[in-house]
Amino acid sequence: MERLLIENLYSHMGETVKIQGWIHRIRKMGKIAFLIIRDRSGIVQCVVDTKTIDIKGLKLESVVEIIGEIKERNAETKESELLTQTLKVISQVNEDLPIEINKEDLDVNIDTLLNNRVLTLRHLKTNAIFKIQAALSQGFAEFLKNEDFTQVYSPKIVAEGTEGGTGLFELKYFEKKAYLAQSPQFYKQMLVGAGYERVFEIGHVYRAEEHNTIRHLNEYVSMDLEMGFIEDERDIMQLETRLIKYIFEYVTNKCAKELALLKVQFPEIGEQIPSMKLSEAIEILKKEYGKTELTNDLDPEGEKLICEYVKEKYNSEFIFLTHYPLSKRPMYTMPEGTESTHSFDLLFRGLEITTGGQRIHNYEQLKKSISSKGLNLESFDGYLEVFKYGMPPHGGLAIGLERLTSQLLGLRNVREVTLFPRDRDRIAP
Amino acid sequence: MERLLIENLYSHMGETVKIQGWIHRIRKMGKIAFLIIRDRSGIVQCVVDTKTIDIKGLKLESVVEIIGEIKERNAETKESELLTQTLKVISQVNEDLPIEINKEDLDVNIDTLLNNRVLTLRHLKTNAIFKIQAALSQGFAEFLKNEDFTQVYSPKIVAEGTEGGTGLFELKYFEKKAYLAQSPQFYKQMLVGAGYERVFEIGHVYRAEEHNTIRHLNEYVSMDLEMGFIEDERDIMQLETRLIKYIFEYVTNKCAKELALLKVQFPEIGEQIPSMKLSEAIEILKKEYGKTELTNDLDPEGEKLICEYVKEKYNSEFIFLTHYPLSKRPMYTMPEGTESTHSFDLLFRGLEITTGGQRIHNYEQLKKSISSKGLNLESFDGYLEVFKYGMPPHGGLAIGLERLTSQLLGLRNVREVTLFPRDRDRIAP
Repeated sequence: MERLLIENLYSHMGETVKIQGWIHRIRKMGKIAFLIIRDRSGIVQCVVDTKTIDIKGLKLESVVEIIGEIKERNAETKESELLTQTLKVISQVNEDLPIEINKEDLDVNIDTLLNNRVLTLRHLKTNAIFKIQAALSQGFAEFLKNEDFTQVYSPKIVAEGTEGGTGLFELKYFEKKAYLAQSPQFYKQMLVGAGYERVFEIGHVYRAEEHNTIRHLNEYVSMDLEMGFIEDERDIMQLETRLIKYIFEYVTNKCAKELALLKVQFPEIGEQIPSMKLSEAIEILKKEYGKTELTNDLDPEGEKLICEYVKEKYNSEFIFLTHYPLSKRPMYTMPEGTESTHSFDLLFRGLEITTGGQRIHNYEQLKKSISSKGLNLESFDGYLEVFKYGMPPHGGLAIGLERLTSQLLGLRNVREVTLFPRDRDRIAP
Repeated sequence: MERLLIENLYSHMGETVKIQGWIHRIRKMGKIAFLIIRDRSGIVQCVVDTKTIDIKGLKLESVVEIIGEIKERNAETKESELLTQTLKVISQVNEDLPIEINKEDLDVNIDTLLNNRVLTLRHLKTNAIFKIQAALSQGFAEFLKNEDFTQVYSPKIVAEGTEGGTGLFELKYFEKKAYLAQSPQFYKQMLVGAGYERVFEIGHVYRAEEHNTIRHLNEYVSMDLEMGFIEDERDIMQLETRLIKYIFEYVTNKCAKELALLKVQFPEIGEQIPSMKLSEAIEILKKEYGKTELTNDLDPEGEKLICEYVKEKYNSEFIFLTHYPLSKRPMYTMPEGTESTHSFDLLFRGLEITTGGQRIHNYEQLKKSISSKGLNLESFDGYLEVFKYGMPPHGGLAIGLERLTSQLLGLRNVREVTLFPRDRDRIAP
C-alpha cells in the first residue's frame, strides 16, 4: 500500500489507507485513544481501540505508520479522521520531550528555541516560517529569471573585503590568509561587465558583527542582484518595486496554508513605493518626533518612526530613502554632486531590508574614489580590471532574506527566522 | 528611444532602433567600417560610414550605443545588420586587450583564462557555459519543488566537521574556533527529521584539499537533497534518475542557443540507469582491463574505464555503483550486513558526480556507528538529538554542480566551469 499524505485524506473518504508520520498528541479516553499524527502536509486524528491495539509505552514524536479507514470528522472544515486498523512504530522514542511542541503556541525563550532546534521546528507554526522563507527566495529567483537575469555562484572565500577590512572573518587558507565574503558586491559587478549584464545570487554572506542584537546575524542569506545599462538608481528602485510585488504574490500562491496559520498580513503596494531623501526623513524625525541627534543616517528607532510616519501619511508600509551622503556609502557608490549619492535603502515595517544604488562605472573615477576612502588601490586589482575594459552604467541591490521574512511575519528577532543562526555566541547546533 | 536587444532585431526589420553593447570586433574597409557589437543576447554587425562617423581611437570592448536602421543580412540564418546613424561611446577603453576574446575559440591556458576572468567570460563560448550552469541548478530546484521538497539554507560556519576533522578550513570565530562546512549532510538530515521530510539545498561547500587536480575545487556548489520515509537507497536512485532527466530537459528548453554554440550532446537515459555493485565493477576492471590494484574503491582511471565498459555494453553514459564497503563510507551510512552499505555513487562520462545512499535512522545504531569510527560521541550532540526524538528512514544525495557541468559540456578541467575557482593556489580574482 502506498503512503497517502494527510492533506489528501479527505478526498479519499471511506477508503482504507496508509499514513506515516510523528505522534503529535496522545489522548486516552477509557478504551479509546486518540492519536494525532503529523506529517509534512498536516495533522489528523486517528481513533485507536486500545483493547486490540496496545499503545502503552508509546511516546510523543515516535514515528509511526497507521493503516485505517477514513471517516469524516467535520464536513465544514473538511477534516477527516482515521479508524485505526494497524499501528506500527517505525522509529521509537524512549524519552519524554524536553519541551512541549504540540500546543498552539510555542512558549519558549530564544535560547531554548534554538538549543532544541529540530524539535521546535516541528511545531506547526515554527515549521511554517521556513516554508514561507523558501518561497520568498524562490519568488525572488523566479522573477529575475523572467527578467533575463543569470543566476551566479560567486566565491565566499576572498582575498580582500569589499569595504576594506573591517568586520571580516579570517580564515587559514593553506599558507595564505583569506576572508569570508561580506557580500558578492565585487563579483556581481564584475559579472555584469563580463557580459551577463543582469545577474543575481542567493547565498550566504558573513559579517563579523561584534554586537549581538535582534537585527543582526553573523551569517545570513543575501539575495543580490546587479544590472547593467541603467539610467540611474531609479531603474533599480522600480525593478525592486515590481520584484517585491511578485515575491509576495508568489508566496501567496504557494503558501496559503502556512500564511493562514501564521495570520500573515501582506502590505499593500501601490504603483510606486513612496520615496524621500534621507535628509527629508531626518527633518521629519526632528520636527515630528523631536529626534534631534540624527545627522547622516537613521538609527533603529529612526527607522521605526519614519515607517510609522509614512504609514500614516502615505498608507505605505514600505519607504525608499534616497540620496545617502557620500561619506556613509562605500567607495563603489555613484556620487551625486560632491556630497550625495545615487543610492537608496528600502525600509519595511520599521526595518531596513535593502541597500542599493547606482555604482561608479568609470575606471578613473573609481580609482579616485577608492583612494579618497583611504584604501589601497593594489588590493583591488582583480576588481578594477573590468572597469578598464568597458563597463556599462550599472547598479543593484541586496535584500536580506531573514529580515524580509521577519518583517513579513511580524517576528521581532531575526534568529527566529533563521534555521540555525550564527551570532556572537552561537555556532551550534 | 528604448534599447532593443540584439536577438530581437530581426523581428523589427526596417525600423530605426537603439542598441547598446560592447565592441566585439572592428573591421575597416576603406570608407566603410564594420563594428560587431555584442550584448547579452548576441552579436550584430553595424555598418559605419567613416566619413560621417569618426571611429579613430575606438578600442575593442568599449561600451557603445548605436542608433541605426535594421537591414537584412542573411535571410536564411535570419541575421540582420544595422546601418549606423549615430554612435555614442558609453564607456571608453583606452588600452589594447591583454588577450584576444573575439576568435571562435579562446586559445589560452587555464591560468591566463582565470587571471583575466572578466575578459575571458566575454568570449561567446565561455559566456555560454555559465548560462547553462545556471539552468542546471535551476532545473534541479524546479524538479524538487514539484516533488514537494522545501529549499533550505543551512549554516556554513560549523563547530565540527561531518567526517570528523580532516580536510576542514579553520576559522577564527571571535574567541572560538570554527570550520567551514564540508557538506550540509547533518543539517539536511536534521531538517528531514524536523518535519520537512524532503529538503534540498544549493550552496557552497568547502574542502581543504591538498591535491590540486583537474577534478578538485576547494570551494564548490553542492546540490543536496534528503528525503524521509524511504524504503532504502533505491528510492533515492530512482528519484535521481527522474531528476537528471528533468534537469537535462529543462536546460534543453532554456539554453538552446548556448547548447548549439557549445555543440553539447546530451546523453540518452532509458527508463532506468544501469547499476552494478562496486565489487562487480572492480571484477570487470580486473578481467577486462587488467587493473588488479583496486580493492575497495575506484581510482580516476577506474571510473573512466568502467564508464567506457558500460557505454559499450549497456549503451549508457551513466552508471550507478552500489554496495560500497562499510569501511569506505561515513558513519551515518546505513550498513547492509556487516561489510556493505545501502549506498551508491553515480558516474557520468567517466567521473563521479553524485554520492548518495540511505542513512542510519536508529539512535542507538547511529551512536554505535560513530564510536566504531573512532569518533567522539559528544561532538555530535546537536546532530544526535533528532535521532533520539523520532527519525524516519531517510536518505539523500549530493550532486557537484561544477562536475555535472564539466561532464555535460565535455570540459576537462573543473576550473573552466567555475566562475572564480578556489584551489590550492588560487584565491583571486
